[in-house]
Amino acid sequence: MSLVFRRIALIGKLRSAETEASLNELRAFLRKRGCEVLPEGESKAGETKADLAIVIGGDGTMLGAARELVRHHVPLVGINQGRLGFMTDIGQSDMQTAIGSILDGKYSVEERTLLDAEILRQGKSVLRTIALNEAVIGKGSQGRLIEFELSVDGEFVYRLRADGIIVSTPTGSTAYALSAQGPILHPAVAGFTLVPLNPHTLSARPVSVSDRGVIEIAMLHALDARAHFDGLALHDMVEGDRLVLKRSADTVRFVHPPGYRYFATLREKLGWSESREKRRATD
Amino acid sequence: MSLVFRRIALIGKLRSAETEASLNELRAFLRKRGCEVLPEGESKAGETKADLAIVIGGDGTMLGAARELVRHHVPLVGINQGRLGFMTDIGQSDMQTAIGSILDGKYSVEERTLLDAEILRQGKSVLRTIALNEAVIGKGSQGRLIEFELSVDGEFVYRLRADGIIVSTPTGSTAYALSAQGPILHPAVAGFTLVPLNPHTLSARPVSVSDRGVIEIAMLHALDARAHFDGLALHDMVEGDRLVLKRSADTVRFVHPPGYRYFATLREKLGWSESREKRRATD
Amino acid sequence: MSLVFRRIALIGKLRSAETEASLNELRAFLRKRGCEVLPEGESKAGETKADLAIVIGGDGTMLGAARELVRHHVPLVGINQGRLGFMTDIGQSDMQTAIGSILDGKYSVEERTLLDAEILRQGKSVLRTIALNEAVIGKGSQGRLIEFELSVDGEFVYRLRADGIIVSTPTGSTAYALSAQGPILHPAVAGFTLVPLNPHTLSARPVSVSDRGVIEIAMLHALDARAHFDGLALHDMVEGDRLVLKRSADTVRFVHPPGYRYFATLREKLGWSESREKRRATD
Amino acid sequence: MSLVFRRIALIGKLRSAETEASLNELRAFLRKRGCEVLPEGESKAGETKADLAIVIGGDGTMLGAARELVRHHVPLVGINQGRLGFMTDIGQSDMQTAIGSILDGKYSVEERTLLDAEILRQGKSVLRTIALNEAVIGKGSQGRLIEFELSVDGEFVYRLRADGIIVSTPTGSTAYALSAQGPILHPAVAGFTLVPLNPHTLSARPVSVSDRGVIEIAMLHALDARAHFDGLALHDMVEGDRLVLKRSADTVRFVHPPGYRYFATLREKLGWSESREKRRATD
Repeated sequence: MSLVFRRIALIGKLRSAETEASLNELRAFLRKRGCEVLPEGESKAGETKADLAIVIGGDGTMLGAARELVRHHVPLVGINQGRLGFMTDIGQSDMQTAIGSILDGKYSVEERTLLDAEILRQGKSVLRTIALNEAVIGKGSQGRLIEFELSVDGEFVYRLRADGIIVSTPTGSTAYALSAQGPILHPAVAGFTLVPLNPHTLSARPVSVSDRGVIEIAMLHALDARAHFDGLALHDMVEGDRLVLKRSADTVRFVHPPGYRYFATLREKLGWSESREKRRATD
Repeated sequence: MSLVFRRIALIGKLRSAETEASLNELRAFLRKRGCEVLPEGESKAGETKADLAIVIGGDGTMLGAARELVRHHVPLVGINQGRLGFMTDIGQSDMQTAIGSILDGKYSVEERTLLDAEILRQGKSVLRTIALNEAVIGKGSQGRLIEFELSVDGEFVYRLRADGIIVSTPTGSTAYALSAQGPILHPAVAGFTLVPLNPHTLSARPVSVSDRGVIEIAMLHALDARAHFDGLALHDMVEGDRLVLKRSADTVRFVHPPGYRYFATLREKLGWSESREKRRATD
Repeated sequence: MSLVFRRIALIGKLRSAETEASLNELRAFLRKRGCEVLPEGESKAGETKADLAIVIGGDGTMLGAARELVRHHVPLVGINQGRLGFMTDIGQSDMQTAIGSILDGKYSVEERTLLDAEILRQGKSVLRTIALNEAVIGKGSQGRLIEFELSVDGEFVYRLRADGIIVSTPTGSTAYALSAQGPILHPAVAGFTLVPLNPHTLSARPVSVSDRGVIEIAMLHALDARAHFDGLALHDMVEGDRLVLKRSADTVRFVHPPGYRYFATLREKLGWSESREKRRATD
Repeated sequence: MSLVFRRIALIGKLRSAETEASLNELRAFLRKRGCEVLPEGESKAGETKADLAIVIGGDGTMLGAARELVRHHVPLVGINQGRLGFMTDIGQSDMQTAIGSILDGKYSVEERTLLDAEILRQGKSVLRTIALNEAVIGKGSQGRLIEFELSVDGEFVYRLRADGIIVSTPTGSTAYALSAQGPILHPAVAGFTLVPLNPHTLSARPVSVSDRGVIEIAMLHALDARAHFDGLALHDMVEGDRLVLKRSADTVRFVHPPGYRYFATLREKLGWSESREKRRATD
């Protein structure tokens, strides 16, 4: 059983001539295929109950769109502009074929977990937001270490002095967390990874925990600290603030054309070896 | 609802005078509590259907006992000899109190996943075994890189030249895999981690995958390579051999006395900071 | 041949009662030994041409004193308050014995290299300072990656997007750079290490270069970036700014009592194993 | 002042048709340029006092040739077969131009330090060899940890349980040591790096030491351990054996054509970003 996509929202950074051309091509193609193309704009895509959102751009554009659309339960498909993305896996030259297949009902849907995030100050909520990639607490521009206490489901994990900490979803495990020596989490792993940033304690290591638990980070020393969510929302953190993270009831759904392989994208993005033939040439 | 433990097997490396004394103390204590103490020996513990096995020693002793007892579904409790273990979390001085509580029905049970491992040579099974910590393929004494192809659920992941690769359970994530820069996986995460050993490709990173899949490693170049399981079973690997790993239907059950905390053991073993007071002293 | 120390400056964070007591004890001891104890204050220590500065406190206090005194060529000895420091290697209980030995001419002198740092904006110098531990360029509180170009002796090394970069001396290699996965550089190695902070490029690794060269970092994207020196001086960095680093003509001289061993301090600070006996207990 | 190269030795793995063709092309070119081309074979290159050895192949071929020729003080130039090497930096298509320039006296010479290695068993020398890349002590095929004690200039560094340890030259820092998380050491840094392999102690880190000291590794537990030198010589290590390493009086001299840049090779080999233009495409 598969969904039929008829009302399609198109999303792109409109300022680029290149994106504009792709959007126009896609709009014409969709209309020829009998689809209703909704007026542009992310918020409209949600309000007007699109069946599918097609995002043209890079992973950053996709991330912004997914954050916006997740509460409207609109699935997304991503088309990259020249360079393969982790989330924008369809190349521009394959755009019509791939979207055509999807409209024909030939596609796979991948569900990605999100973090629900809340910052509590003196017990009161001062921010609620979500994160598809990661929540980060980091030191500010003064460059002083921060110190925090981490607990999972009320169980104390550690107290740490560090540049910060990343709490990453499987989706985010190939983004910022990977630069910070975090492991890659396949999207089918029901977990989040806690990655300390340049910890003062040398034995502090990334820890993956179940996504059914509640992660809490309490700030002990926080001169000029900040919390970041997907690099798109931020809030200052002061001593005593608590960041509470848990799995969101919503999930982001990525729609992929036939032939999509998670590990093929990883290999391409990370420069992992492809084939025996390629290897032989490297001896 | 909790199990009542009446028939108890005692397991220890018998050659140590220290262990012998603990075993004698424990035997007397158990009899006073009205338990039946089974004749020693791991295999007997299984055959005679012990309700519980008490292991005295280090994590290595516990590992061997767990591998032996898992098919008989005997839960284990571990008592260390002087130094806290990841699996032997009861100290000798707390032994009577802790075991007493467990016999009173005050305990928690933690299930740990195992790997079922099979080596196929020209399509035929040449070894079947299990791993509670990890399966490792490593280069031999000639010191030459090996090369292998990794796939998960039939999907190609990568081809790698390396000193080897570890496939670790959550239990094994604090053992050898941790030395090889693998992440810590909380036992509640239903996953395994693939950790390359000194990979030729610098962007090769640990990857955690769901424990519902089948992991397969096919040897491409394997001069003098070997597969190891929990450091206790081993088999040579030649070109063309395939190691097939999946989650075992059995699980190991660790019995803990009241107050056991997974992260408390981690903090103690890895030297993570404990308290604000301790920290202040370090400034 | 050894220096005779007669005019001694005492340096400590004066607000602590504990430090005050140690300073008083030391002042009395020095006078009994016939030394002239100079009026307190770091700047005075330099102006009045002290033969030796004794610093009581942690590595942070020592770092500040060393930065101040290096231009006056005053050697330093460090006394810690309860916890061994990398630079404050004399314990409070050994204070009189250790200082007594040094006054008797029994000591070793260790020279530590410094970085001369200059920030150039549109070709003009906007900051000149030094670094005994490290120079850091880091992103600011907005949390956006910075991008820079690194060259050594005019030879282009790489262009990198990262949270920042550390240029560390051997002295600094056991400080912040160590948290960022940098190698330890023994003080006798005439080099500096370039350590990228959470680099976008996974194959970016720490690089150690000769201390006879000129290291230059040119900012390409620098929204809210900052340069830090020993965590004590800082300056904002804007697009086009260049940070130029080279070995200073001055060196810091640390005076150690008999029996000082560089690696003994490392072992103690990093929790490296000490002895065969200790190890046996861990099996 | 530059050397004039007239007597040239040609070295290549002779079995490859591709290498044979290159050797023939080069032989003809050299004769046209008035050079004497010595009979093939590495040992002959030494005995007959070649002015220069031209090596065609990969870094492995170059490594073997350098080990052989270093005692005859013959400088080397490396030509790769299709893929840039760290030591074979001249591409086949540039071969005549590059060698022509070198014969014209337009070249740079880079000196690379070597390790002198000796294994002592019960105080007697059982092996003497050299290492241009690295000396490695590693566990054997049984997969058991080894344990050793490391000292530098007689000063105890640490006792470690690990899979092994690498002692790397700057040349070797981009080879095996890099896979084991070692830092890159520019050839102008007068140091060696000690890189533990999967150490049991999580805070064990790579340590770079001056190349003027003596490094000694004493085996404490060595079931089936082995020492390897450049992956080309090996010797078993038993309990009590000591491996003594110091800088060799000889150096390998690499001759490079005009335009050679150390960091350009690094960028190409490690996939580091090249240019601002390239970066823009990745956003």
